[in-house]
Amino acid sequence: MKIEHLGIAVKSLAGSDNLFARLLGKENYKQESVEREGVTTSFYEIGESKIELLEATNPESPIAKFLDKKGEGIHHIAFGVENIFSEIERLKKEGFIFISEDPKEGADNKLVVFLHPRSTNGVLVELCQEKP
Amino acid sequence: MKIEHLGIAVKSLAGSDNLFARLLGKENYKQESVEREGVTTSFYEIGESKIELLEATNPESPIAKFLDKKGEGIHHIAFGVENIFSEIERLKKEGFIFISEDPKEGADNKLVVFLHPRSTNGVLVELCQEKP
Repeated sequence: MKIEHLGIAVKSLAGSDNLFARLLGKENYKQESVEREGVTTSFYEIGESKIELLEATNPESPIAKFLDKKGEGIHHIAFGVENIFSEIERLKKEGFIFISEDPKEGADNKLVVFLHPRSTNGVLVELCQEKP
Repeated sequence: MKIEHLGIAVKSLAGSDNLFARLLGKENYKQESVEREGVTTSFYEIGESKIELLEATNPESPIAKFLDKKGEGIHHIAFGVENIFSEIERLKKEGFIFISEDPKEGADNKLVVFLHPRSTNGVLVELCQEKP
């Protein structure tokens, strides 16, 4: 397990891509939209991990709702795992609650699933696995 | 630069250490108090990064204030750098604002400094360097 990425909700990629490029001292390596989630993402490599900026593409997007409620800031942490299905089983046995137990296609060629923050100390935790 | 650690504010290490050990599938490798900051920390290794749980040791602690205002959750992200002084200079030239520009002794044998969230999209960013 490693920190695969850290998701940060931003109002506008136009401004925030500039800001994070200056902060991290490097450009993003891609932008990618995930229509089902209503987000456009921008990725930066940093060591073995990534920073994923998240901009809402419509007002019903989870990111639009997060920005309304909490403002810009860290949205979730994603742990990269070898086998997402066995990790889901392990964590269910440990009593963790999932928002949905069925992995879906996320950005960056990943299968992803989210744990509910009420079972993880208020932290929105994503598990992700590279798609086979 | 890498993600050195992710700081998570918790009400009680007693409960949260148990929770994160089950989530990450491993025990913490140490607890450490930083009196000047009013926190007790608990560290978990995960790949090249760490998870740092933060519990307030007094009501004036920045962590106590964060919990009052926002509840439990991700508190800051720390980037590990080779030379904290040259990074501070680079980021000042880029227009970033620091809470204090003088590195202080943090937990886990580090020199640490914080950028102000208003210059970093609402994200509390720490820079840290292993102490020489």
